[in-house]
Amino acid sequence: MSKPTLLTPQSTDFPRWYQDVIARAELADNGPVRGTMVIRPTGYALWERMQREVDDRIKAVGGRNAYFPLFIPESYLQREADHVEGFSPELAVVTHAGGKQLEEPVVVRPTSETIINSFFSKWVQSYRDLPMKLNNWSNVVRWEMRPRIFLRTTEFLWQEGHTCHATEAQARAHAREVLDDVYGAFMTEVLAMPVVKGRKTARERFAGATNTLTCEAMMRDGKALQMGTSHELGQNFARAFDVQFLAASGQREYVWQTSWGVSTRMIGGLIMCHGDDAGLRVPPRLAPVQAIVLVVRDDADVRARAHQVVSELRDAGVRTVLDEQTDISFGRRAIDAELKGVPVRVELGPRELAAGKAVLVRRIPGTKEPVALAALVPEIEAALRTDQQTLHDQALARREAASPLVESLDQAREAATHGWARIPWSTLGEQGEASLAEHAVTVRCLTRPDGSVPDHGDESDVIAWVGRAY
Amino acid sequence: MSKPTLLTPQSTDFPRWYQDVIARAELADNGPVRGTMVIRPTGYALWERMQREVDDRIKAVGGRNAYFPLFIPESYLQREADHVEGFSPELAVVTHAGGKQLEEPVVVRPTSETIINSFFSKWVQSYRDLPMKLNNWSNVVRWEMRPRIFLRTTEFLWQEGHTCHATEAQARAHAREVLDDVYGAFMTEVLAMPVVKGRKTARERFAGATNTLTCEAMMRDGKALQMGTSHELGQNFARAFDVQFLAASGQREYVWQTSWGVSTRMIGGLIMCHGDDAGLRVPPRLAPVQAIVLVVRDDADVRARAHQVVSELRDAGVRTVLDEQTDISFGRRAIDAELKGVPVRVELGPRELAAGKAVLVRRIPGTKEPVALAALVPEIEAALRTDQQTLHDQALARREAASPLVESLDQAREAATHGWARIPWSTLGEQGEASLAEHAVTVRCLTRPDGSVPDHGDESDVIAWVGRAY
Repeated sequence: MSKPTLLTPQSTDFPRWYQDVIARAELADNGPVRGTMVIRPTGYALWERMQREVDDRIKAVGGRNAYFPLFIPESYLQREADHVEGFSPELAVVTHAGGKQLEEPVVVRPTSETIINSFFSKWVQSYRDLPMKLNNWSNVVRWEMRPRIFLRTTEFLWQEGHTCHATEAQARAHAREVLDDVYGAFMTEVLAMPVVKGRKTARERFAGATNTLTCEAMMRDGKALQMGTSHELGQNFARAFDVQFLAASGQREYVWQTSWGVSTRMIGGLIMCHGDDAGLRVPPRLAPVQAIVLVVRDDADVRARAHQVVSELRDAGVRTVLDEQTDISFGRRAIDAELKGVPVRVELGPRELAAGKAVLVRRIPGTKEPVALAALVPEIEAALRTDQQTLHDQALARREAASPLVESLDQAREAATHGWARIPWSTLGEQGEASLAEHAVTVRCLTRPDGSVPDHGDESDVIAWVGRAY
Repeated sequence: MSKPTLLTPQSTDFPRWYQDVIARAELADNGPVRGTMVIRPTGYALWERMQREVDDRIKAVGGRNAYFPLFIPESYLQREADHVEGFSPELAVVTHAGGKQLEEPVVVRPTSETIINSFFSKWVQSYRDLPMKLNNWSNVVRWEMRPRIFLRTTEFLWQEGHTCHATEAQARAHAREVLDDVYGAFMTEVLAMPVVKGRKTARERFAGATNTLTCEAMMRDGKALQMGTSHELGQNFARAFDVQFLAASGQREYVWQTSWGVSTRMIGGLIMCHGDDAGLRVPPRLAPVQAIVLVVRDDADVRARAHQVVSELRDAGVRTVLDEQTDISFGRRAIDAELKGVPVRVELGPRELAAGKAVLVRRIPGTKEPVALAALVPEIEAALRTDQQTLHDQALARREAASPLVESLDQAREAATHGWARIPWSTLGEQGEASLAEHAVTVRCLTRPDGSVPDHGDESDVIAWVGRAY
């Protein structure tokens, strides 16, 4: 039986494959206003799982959630020079409200450094108030010229963390802690995405930051996706908004700050890092549905046993759903589960039941084999653990194979046609960076040769990771 | 020792008491754009717990979360006549974005019936697709002339559910299921607020609905707060957006719909229903922090034992925090816990430790007594259960005492100066309703004499609950 071709193959047209997966797996749709998106239940369930996992890690490093307003007075953005320059072209502006023209137009938040700092200036008084670590889950708006669903949308969902510290060293340590223990750990362990963690060059830095740290992932077409960033803001916003504290010494000092965020863009990264020609492959630790139990044909005994299997799996802590919609063809339901990337599928029909077995189909390795019903739960638990690691290792192997260490700009540009290159920053430099940029190749980040994050961009031996990026 | 007066007493000036609690308990702040608010961590933690509890109940009745865009083309709102009339005066409009004037202005969503129906018209094809039950957690904007924090803000956070059904009876049953099993159950069991569930009169109905069901709570000043609503939309939006399905009969039919929502306004309701002159009183089932363990004075043994108490409470599933900030005066920390309404406070100092005891302070009944350390966990578990019920029963007793059954408009108006009145709808009627409205007294809802929800407004014996409202 030949498989119906639902998706454009990745090798034929990767961007079209991406759009196809999003449509067929019912992840999202374009909104009516250019660049906006509707996140459908299957896509939103991925986001809810991401939120829960990231939120737990944010709280573990001392963050507390709060909510800041969507609307920011236009004048606030103008207080930090680099910041306003970076964001002005992307702003959406409300000029009319309540049937009248507003006296001062308000912008729809593109990010909240300015409004949050206006409150830090009230709330931070003494060294006892520090560190202050706030996090906001919200929607933000940046008017995009070339929107692409999940990756670059006019409105997206994200979290933005904002913190105040008494010293530069404490702020620096916190920016690193978020990079490592929140984002890096989540992406590697839960998303199964072996991200490269490093520093941005001055050219790629966030507008208003003194240093930007980043997690960069390789997609299956060899391009890079910036998955999340953690910034040191120095005292830039503290000075612009007068955020001072009374130090233990009795002196008034400006606070040192960080900000950091991840967004619905991670869903796009997940799709493009793990997906194949049959659809999504969702890592088991993230998956909203880890196992789906399919009743092959309508049969009372089969149904009863399928319900039992679902109960057993749920009791074992496996997120499981039952599909007993036998009025829809079995093939269509199986393909739907593949498209949506459900890690494990259990097929149960009268023939299997008679043999005391079920068919276990594993989406990630693509295997399909009969398993004794009595052994199903431990088999599935083991499969989920193994397949989580498999996804990670496959992505790591692809990245390693496609990130050669090169010695010249020409070699770097050549490598970037189908992957990344690593090149000594001393060889590349800002001149080389500008030259690569003309070919749409950018420095994704700087690391030390052993992959660790440099404390400064001017450490000797620093390596630049370059590639094309989304 | 006389207690420092932190809050304006409720009896002196209830609205000022409300503002004082919000400021002193650090729940929220006014935003820079008129009518917007910042929800601070202590307030946001209440919202997170509300979200979790409501979300679980929405999923239990088959709802699936999704996300729809913030921006809606202005033309969408105009497709349903009552709807646009109801919302036009409150809209915020984006006219400029990305540095240019927009061809068609976009409105910032005041509610999402229109945009969601534009997608239902794509997604709903056959009776197999029904019921379709979506829910969106988001922020919405309604430009308010008389903003009041949490109760009436230009931007607020909420969830809005939107469902499609094959028949009117199914839509009606779902609107009731949400009223009873989601909102009513949550408010009564978790918020400890004995809400009255009933139907709105035609005058008070949601713009675009055929029927609005509501949960109404009495505040401690005798005014009403609408805590949540569940609407039957009939086929109004289905016709406006052409949402049709192929019925089992082979005919194309318009779907029948519901929509329903609760918002951050519930935080305001919680404050005003349970709070007293010392601050908030948070029901234990809701409380982000159910118990706080205070180290009275710096002492190594006391600290060690306090850590152990915290562990034991957490192991028992009690949400507990430790306060060992002995550089801040004990009195100030105790008052802060009272202000924030933490249900149980455990005070542990060297003297208590020597006696093998701790002092257990219960916020809701206001009791304070020594308890043997060995008995602390079961005592606290029992206290949390009892005090949850106490809050509910106090609120119910207040409402019952302040909702007399009256026989004339004059009596109703008189009762509404300090509470509610119940009056037969046959006595009041639409004329009487209009007459009361001139005195700012409105019909909160209609119920049957036994308190159940009438199927129609014109059932005989229906009772109108009237009062002033926020």
